[in-house]
Amino acid sequence: MKAHIKVTLKKGVLDPQGKAIEGALGHLGFAGVLGVRQGKYFEIDIAETNKANAMTEVRAMCEKLIANTVIENYDIELA
Amino acid sequence: MKAHIKVTLKKGVLDPQGKAIEGALGHLGFAGVLGVRQGKYFEIDIAETNKANAMTEVRAMCEKLIANTVIENYDIELA
Repeated sequence: MKAHIKVTLKKGVLDPQGKAIEGALGHLGFAGVLGVRQGKYFEIDIAETNKANAMTEVRAMCEKLIANTVIENYDIELA
Repeated sequence: MKAHIKVTLKKGVLDPQGKAIEGALGHLGFAGVLGVRQGKYFEIDIAETNKANAMTEVRAMCEKLIANTVIENYDIELA
């Protein structure tokens, strides 16, 4: 089973990398950019085939390693 | 309009960061991890409200700045 995980900064957490991209897009001539936030994306292939068990396992991975839950949110999709 | 962009390494491109996470998950006791690939995730807020125009604009951003299309694929979702 494959887990797709998006890790994004929580609202209010500064994102200098996103700001830099926003500036760079402006310099490249993209005028209508209102904001950019950068996050991380992970694809994890796991042996578990039961969806509920897989979700529990992947959630534990996120809490322990993948995301810094003090400043980041994570969103898991199983496929 | 908001664009959600996933940037992932193309098949065959080495992903040492993903390998490191895979190893770390193993050390943490997650036994059933078959593979990890890390990518990037972007949320771009744009002024354009027409979906087709927005897609064209965001695709141009990806080609010019967001993704390195030699080694990376990108996937755009508009919402």
